[in-house]
Amino acid sequence: MRELLNSLAAGEISVSEAEAELNGYVTGDAGRFDAARTGRTGIPEMILAEGKTPEETAALAVLAVETTERAIITRTDAPTANEVEECVIEEHPDAVIEHAERTETIVVYSPAFEPPSLDADIGIVTAGTSDAVPAGEAATIAREMGARVTRIDDVGVAGLARLIDRLDDCRAQDVLIIAAGREGALPTVAAGLVDVPLIGLPVSNGYGYGGDGEAALAGMLQSCTPITVVNIDAGVTAGAQAGLIARALDAARAE
Amino acid sequence: MRELLNSLAAGEISVSEAEAELNGYVTGDAGRFDAARTGRTGIPEMILAEGKTPEETAALAVLAVETTERAIITRTDAPTANEVEECVIEEHPDAVIEHAERTETIVVYSPAFEPPSLDADIGIVTAGTSDAVPAGEAATIAREMGARVTRIDDVGVAGLARLIDRLDDCRAQDVLIIAAGREGALPTVAAGLVDVPLIGLPVSNGYGYGGDGEAALAGMLQSCTPITVVNIDAGVTAGAQAGLIARALDAARAE
Amino acid sequence: MRELLNSLAAGEISVSEAEAELNGYVTGDAGRFDAARTGRTGIPEMILAEGKTPEETAALAVLAVETTERAIITRTDAPTANEVEECVIEEHPDAVIEHAERTETIVVYSPAFEPPSLDADIGIVTAGTSDAVPAGEAATIAREMGARVTRIDDVGVAGLARLIDRLDDCRAQDVLIIAAGREGALPTVAAGLVDVPLIGLPVSNGYGYGGDGEAALAGMLQSCTPITVVNIDAGVTAGAQAGLIARALDAARAE
Amino acid sequence: MRELLNSLAAGEISVSEAEAELNGYVTGDAGRFDAARTGRTGIPEMILAEGKTPEETAALAVLAVETTERAIITRTDAPTANEVEECVIEEHPDAVIEHAERTETIVVYSPAFEPPSLDADIGIVTAGTSDAVPAGEAATIAREMGARVTRIDDVGVAGLARLIDRLDDCRAQDVLIIAAGREGALPTVAAGLVDVPLIGLPVSNGYGYGGDGEAALAGMLQSCTPITVVNIDAGVTAGAQAGLIARALDAARAE
Amino acid sequence: MRELLNSLAAGEISVSEAEAELNGYVTGDAGRFDAARTGRTGIPEMILAEGKTPEETAALAVLAVETTERAIITRTDAPTANEVEECVIEEHPDAVIEHAERTETIVVYSPAFEPPSLDADIGIVTAGTSDAVPAGEAATIAREMGARVTRIDDVGVAGLARLIDRLDDCRAQDVLIIAAGREGALPTVAAGLVDVPLIGLPVSNGYGYGGDGEAALAGMLQSCTPITVVNIDAGVTAGAQAGLIARALDAARAE
Amino acid sequence: MRELLNSLAAGEISVSEAEAELNGYVTGDAGRFDAARTGRTGIPEMILAEGKTPEETAALAVLAVETTERAIITRTDAPTANEVEECVIEEHPDAVIEHAERTETIVVYSPAFEPPSLDADIGIVTAGTSDAVPAGEAATIAREMGARVTRIDDVGVAGLARLIDRLDDCRAQDVLIIAAGREGALPTVAAGLVDVPLIGLPVSNGYGYGGDGEAALAGMLQSCTPITVVNIDAGVTAGAQAGLIARALDAARAE
Amino acid sequence: MRELLNSLAAGEISVSEAEAELNGYVTGDAGRFDAARTGRTGIPEMILAEGKTPEETAALAVLAVETTERAIITRTDAPTANEVEECVIEEHPDAVIEHAERTETIVVYSPAFEPPSLDADIGIVTAGTSDAVPAGEAATIAREMGARVTRIDDVGVAGLARLIDRLDDCRAQDVLIIAAGREGALPTVAAGLVDVPLIGLPVSNGYGYGGDGEAALAGMLQSCTPITVVNIDAGVTAGAQAGLIARALDAARAE
Amino acid sequence: MRELLNSLAAGEISVSEAEAELNGYVTGDAGRFDAARTGRTGIPEMILAEGKTPEETAALAVLAVETTERAIITRTDAPTANEVEECVIEEHPDAVIEHAERTETIVVYSPAFEPPSLDADIGIVTAGTSDAVPAGEAATIAREMGARVTRIDDVGVAGLARLIDRLDDCRAQDVLIIAAGREGALPTVAAGLVDVPLIGLPVSNGYGYGGDGEAALAGMLQSCTPITVVNIDAGVTAGAQAGLIARALDAARAE
Repeated sequence: MRELLNSLAAGEISVSEAEAELNGYVTGDAGRFDAARTGRTGIPEMILAEGKTPEETAALAVLAVETTERAIITRTDAPTANEVEECVIEEHPDAVIEHAERTETIVVYSPAFEPPSLDADIGIVTAGTSDAVPAGEAATIAREMGARVTRIDDVGVAGLARLIDRLDDCRAQDVLIIAAGREGALPTVAAGLVDVPLIGLPVSNGYGYGGDGEAALAGMLQSCTPITVVNIDAGVTAGAQAGLIARALDAARAE
Repeated sequence: MRELLNSLAAGEISVSEAEAELNGYVTGDAGRFDAARTGRTGIPEMILAEGKTPEETAALAVLAVETTERAIITRTDAPTANEVEECVIEEHPDAVIEHAERTETIVVYSPAFEPPSLDADIGIVTAGTSDAVPAGEAATIAREMGARVTRIDDVGVAGLARLIDRLDDCRAQDVLIIAAGREGALPTVAAGLVDVPLIGLPVSNGYGYGGDGEAALAGMLQSCTPITVVNIDAGVTAGAQAGLIARALDAARAE
Repeated sequence: MRELLNSLAAGEISVSEAEAELNGYVTGDAGRFDAARTGRTGIPEMILAEGKTPEETAALAVLAVETTERAIITRTDAPTANEVEECVIEEHPDAVIEHAERTETIVVYSPAFEPPSLDADIGIVTAGTSDAVPAGEAATIAREMGARVTRIDDVGVAGLARLIDRLDDCRAQDVLIIAAGREGALPTVAAGLVDVPLIGLPVSNGYGYGGDGEAALAGMLQSCTPITVVNIDAGVTAGAQAGLIARALDAARAE
Repeated sequence: MRELLNSLAAGEISVSEAEAELNGYVTGDAGRFDAARTGRTGIPEMILAEGKTPEETAALAVLAVETTERAIITRTDAPTANEVEECVIEEHPDAVIEHAERTETIVVYSPAFEPPSLDADIGIVTAGTSDAVPAGEAATIAREMGARVTRIDDVGVAGLARLIDRLDDCRAQDVLIIAAGREGALPTVAAGLVDVPLIGLPVSNGYGYGGDGEAALAGMLQSCTPITVVNIDAGVTAGAQAGLIARALDAARAE
Repeated sequence: MRELLNSLAAGEISVSEAEAELNGYVTGDAGRFDAARTGRTGIPEMILAEGKTPEETAALAVLAVETTERAIITRTDAPTANEVEECVIEEHPDAVIEHAERTETIVVYSPAFEPPSLDADIGIVTAGTSDAVPAGEAATIAREMGARVTRIDDVGVAGLARLIDRLDDCRAQDVLIIAAGREGALPTVAAGLVDVPLIGLPVSNGYGYGGDGEAALAGMLQSCTPITVVNIDAGVTAGAQAGLIARALDAARAE
Repeated sequence: MRELLNSLAAGEISVSEAEAELNGYVTGDAGRFDAARTGRTGIPEMILAEGKTPEETAALAVLAVETTERAIITRTDAPTANEVEECVIEEHPDAVIEHAERTETIVVYSPAFEPPSLDADIGIVTAGTSDAVPAGEAATIAREMGARVTRIDDVGVAGLARLIDRLDDCRAQDVLIIAAGREGALPTVAAGLVDVPLIGLPVSNGYGYGGDGEAALAGMLQSCTPITVVNIDAGVTAGAQAGLIARALDAARAE
Repeated sequence: MRELLNSLAAGEISVSEAEAELNGYVTGDAGRFDAARTGRTGIPEMILAEGKTPEETAALAVLAVETTERAIITRTDAPTANEVEECVIEEHPDAVIEHAERTETIVVYSPAFEPPSLDADIGIVTAGTSDAVPAGEAATIAREMGARVTRIDDVGVAGLARLIDRLDDCRAQDVLIIAAGREGALPTVAAGLVDVPLIGLPVSNGYGYGGDGEAALAGMLQSCTPITVVNIDAGVTAGAQAGLIARALDAARAE
Repeated sequence: MRELLNSLAAGEISVSEAEAELNGYVTGDAGRFDAARTGRTGIPEMILAEGKTPEETAALAVLAVETTERAIITRTDAPTANEVEECVIEEHPDAVIEHAERTETIVVYSPAFEPPSLDADIGIVTAGTSDAVPAGEAATIAREMGARVTRIDDVGVAGLARLIDRLDDCRAQDVLIIAAGREGALPTVAAGLVDVPLIGLPVSNGYGYGGDGEAALAGMLQSCTPITVVNIDAGVTAGAQAGLIARALDAARAE
């Protein structure tokens, strides 16, 4: 601990970093940032912008960069994205900001950030164009955890040929995340054809009875093949669990 | 009408038959039997035993035989089946009784019954063993309306090979009824591969969220392929609508 | 195949057409277009604009015209409609664009398009003014599949006379699609009076308990007459299945 | 009050009657009996056997006879019916016990009971045989309140002729209670044809989605004709409200 | 009928009036107007603006004035109200237009309209300020049917004194409509204290579980006192049924 | 700790008691018993028999007596009650067993048990006879925590006089638990009349929509008076929270 | 009463105050204000702005200040807040207005207002930043009832250290309100660690299945620890019940 | 293939084995057995007894032993278990039958069966005694796939010490399955403390709102930590997916 305090005294680390190292979390005005999460759970702390004001999200993003050299923010609308970009640039002018508008995610890297790298492949499969947002969210998290990510798009079950043409690609992955809306049958059909761990990601499209992803969720939970499932549109959850599996495989390969 | 009354006076037809001919329906102690339904809607009147006492069901069965030479009874439990058999034998000792225990249907034919015959094929497809009851119910109704019925069983989506092996059989039908429980994906997958009218029949198996056929119903209604659907376990409805299509095709072929 | 490649080399067909012919589907930037669907399922591929960006929808529309000489787009809001019209005009200045604002459908025809024609009648019945959108969607699809379409409007059950006056029109159809919201009783009442195949189309009007089409859907699934049903507002599905029945009748009449 | 206490002292009335007269309710071991209810609300206190032990129900029945000369008990299973009959006979050997097994109601009259009589007609209409239980419950309550009750059975909407044949009977009533299960369309259709107050009574038959009376309830609440509704199988409620209307009409006719 | 045609020929009645007289309904561009409804059901035809375009609503309003001298329109938003007012003034400059903004209702009277008058009192009770809209809708319909209407406001159960102070007013009515949101206990408490027919009108306020009127609807259907119920916010339905009871009482009083 | 081990060595305490003292919980064959719970949370550990075999419940009961001198068991059916009684008698022949059949609770006391005593009053109010089971469960827990418990029964809102007669009793309590089924209005009405903390306990009676306690739960959560609520039939939860308040008051009075 | 009327005559109190004193409630144009509530229930009357027009809310606020020297208004949007501030300033220029924008509450104090003070501590715990609104609402009510309020923020269960670090703070309170969204596990985990009365406050964040606070509500009702619960986002209810407990403790401490 | 046919001709393999090898599935009277599933998906085919007759289950079990040397049967009630045991013994007297009554699973091994073995650890954690059945089901599948399985029981969140004491055991696993009923908070709490892939398994205990596993499912899907989930009681699914992860790790370790 002495070393840590020396570094702080020497200005080598910030107060937030020191607090994070000592406590596991840092407290700012907008709430706490659980900096120790990666160590404890293998999953980087992410900031869910939804339900927070743009100012709160931006403050947490700055706190994250200060303590972990990176900030991962999901479900950012336009005002939040602006606020985050402005605040980060003001506080960390040399940070790199990657803003994926379509998937509503922002990742900020300080120059000091060292990206993790895992020897494992995560495949992210979509049934159609409208599955893009949660699939993109999943891809972001998986990539930030260090996995290699492959996108396999537009393989809906209404035209089986599209799936069968990509079956070898699917089988080449270590883990599959399969995003599908409407009746959500794609993970079930795929699970009967591949032998890798497979996470179903129901997507909130469709209308009428079972719309907004409910039929997809129910169908995946009720699937006659054994798949695990995350909540509707929960790309972050799917990406993080796939990342944990990738991390375990990376460790196993290194044994 | 005079002719009718002459027949009655001459004992050639029963009072019930005369009433049915004149009114369209016959009134017995246990309720009314809508004898004119076949003429009006193309679908024979069926007796749903569920929610009736065995005595009521049996009385309606006798009334049906008297007025239309046939009784079709569905959802019969054991006491109802016994009561129906006993009453029918007592009143119509020469009637033929076909009791399908597994599908819980009974059909009674008087010797005078002339079975209809349609030049059309209905295929009834099941995903698994536990779809047998509603599939059987559908088959009974379709057959009683005169269609040729083909069963294509056990072609669940978890093993696509089983479906693909039977694809030519599916394509050879004029109409398909596809029964599936759990996530109910089979009609969706099949509808992407065949070009015949297709009715989805969700089955009440499965457990937990979306169990008892709810996920199957939601998935079929939400299907990314255009299929029509009937209620959970509503084999009678699926069979009768498929029968109407068969009837229309039969008429078209005869033009 | 050689012939195909010759045509391509000679510039007689586009690359997309060649890919469609060879693969069954064409891949553009906005996703894949399943050009082989009509051949495989008898139903033309349609583009659901909902859940896609205007740019994606427009790109798919252009792809559709290129490969199948026609694009059918449903659930188009105003920005999508503008984008589609602009893109199509730019790429195919001689295409004909039919935009039905009320039903939110657009159909684009290239000059080379040969409209199909089926010897079969589809009747589309509505209970009231607010059923217009899904009924119009169903009519568009049925017409594009080549059926003759008759509209029978405003025959709600609260005033039975309105239905009974149109009963002969209903009976003259080969298939009926009946759209109704609120309690959705119209298909049930009609099904007791006609003998043609009948598809119930629940409409998302009404408010309070069972509003947004839920009571209508439940009532049609639970109907004491045997009818098949599609999801709430699923005019496309109703139209396509009615179209398949019409197609089967057309073939039977031609036998 | 003195008079009351004199009667009690003279043994002309029981302690329960005296307590009922003074307090409005009587307290026995099995709970309180709200003897003053008829005076306050126009509706006799009824004993719902469901959720009570046979002993409790029987004790309340005896208490009711003692204080109001009548006991009305609904939803009685066989053990409760036995217990009630035994207890009542023991305590009030000269009481008349009417037990309607099919509708699961028991009414006990002491010799001193003077039945009320209202100059008003309540029609109770059923769609089919399986609506018998709640319809019977409604009839019992309406009759016990003094109204004239007419049953109009088996007029389901799948065969409109059956309804139209009974339309004059329907129109001759002062109030209509219409019981229907499945999709529950009958009250809607009838309400478009008659001009008397009309209460919809949904019945818990049917299966699958919207089964157990839910589609019927939703359809009646969502009806495109204005009808009031009671809960699923709530024959007692329908009968009592119809009885209140009959009571108001009786008073108006007597003005 | 000859007389009717003479009137038409003489220009004494409009074509719409003649059609209405002959057919029972009139067909305009925006749909049919069921002009015979009052005669058949005792309830005037009303136009629900929700789900119709302003133009359609206005056209139906004009048609209504033409055939029945009055138009009753509910759930009118601002654009619809404007359109209705403009069209009506253009077509019928001498019509009187009553627009109740708070309750979103418009009633148009032609000079020839003769308001009905019933010898019966309808009380409309509210639990709080936010019940105003459906209560106002009910009042409008009841008044248009000719009943005397009394408003009894702000008598929520959280302060029983407010209810008890108005109990005599409640008991003086022939029928009560009681509007309540949140837990909807007011009709239950009131029904234990009065002896007149009582219709519960659940209101869509409240939030969280059971919000939007669901707890109120469930509580009224499940009430331990026997009350009838209409759908959430269905002021029109409550008003019309109360009106039918008032009409029956008026007739009884006139006997 | 040495003292503890000495006691164990000397046979003064059992191994289970020693483990409980050291670990906070004891592990038997049938699971763990959280003996330290009272100290940590103020609430004695209770054994929920539902979902356990009779053998498991009995083994946990014996473990409880051994470590805390008392076992509180809820939701015991007959076989469980027998098994518990037999096992307890065999292991602790001098224990006192109190079995309340109606409320399905068993409490076992070893002779060494010293009952707690709190200077605080908990009132348990029921709307009707069928609320007895959860009300009794709540009373058992409250009593075992040491509070004085008063029962105030049968004060349903349909007859307000019954409530108002007992208002002083209600106001004399330190905390109120109010159990009600059907529409569950009683806690709302009471909360407008008293000024003590009040816990609503919804009861699973009623039928149809909102039955099985759902309307009661929704109504209490949606109440226009501020009350806290427990789950349907959760007498244990209501009793334990009321007990915690009583405990706090006891401590405050002792300050 | 004479004294009251003298005060009124002397202009010492307003007409509203006099009416409130005599009647218990005051009637203004916008509805009634239940001024006697504090005396009767211990909870000050609050004005819920949601569902009222800004004018109605402002009028009730003025009425409240006039009769009880304070107005507490919750769920105020910007237009309502403006209207309230303007009206109050106009009528009571010397009033103090506290507007907490984030929690959407306004409290107005007249100079004559004497704040209550209770010798009791209420802790309000949040799981995360997005629980701020209902937690703030609860804090406002608790404070206005006179309790000491401590906020313990950001102690979500995903990082237990954050909770354990604040455990002593939690244990130091007399009552805890614990606000949590998503899966709502925090009250359950905390209830296993503290021994004070504890109210769970589910918060409407989260998305997909169980979103909008439903999973949190279900989880708290289903908790394996005994906690009481209020509706989703019902900060007012939680604060008021905690206030009642604080009030009881204050009285006990004063005994 | 010739080799295969030679083996068959030589009687070295059965007809079923040959069919399985050639087709991927075997067809018996009771349905098809998908013998190729293990090869295709890595998961052995299992027989779900629920929804099949005892005879069908037994026939499929015999077919399974014949083609894959093992039968895994889940959800077996007593009659099914008897039938399976009798049939297997008759057909394969030397087979070993392991029947776990508590978890309702049966596994049959022919002497020729070579159990798989994976170098990977699966931990199965339960919150309480009543989670035993689905946890046992998961354990059976995981074990049959070859993984090492560790049970960590009775670590519910109401007493955190029980979880924290077992944290090192949890962290030592390669994958965790965590079974919990009621509010299902255990996977969420654990996921904040460990860094291995984690599958939540909701269990159908609990009562009232959110009972039967619904609150647990909702809470896990809505968890503020990223976990994947299976359906309520779907131990088979959890076990199989954990098995796939174990299989991937085994392969990675062998690289």
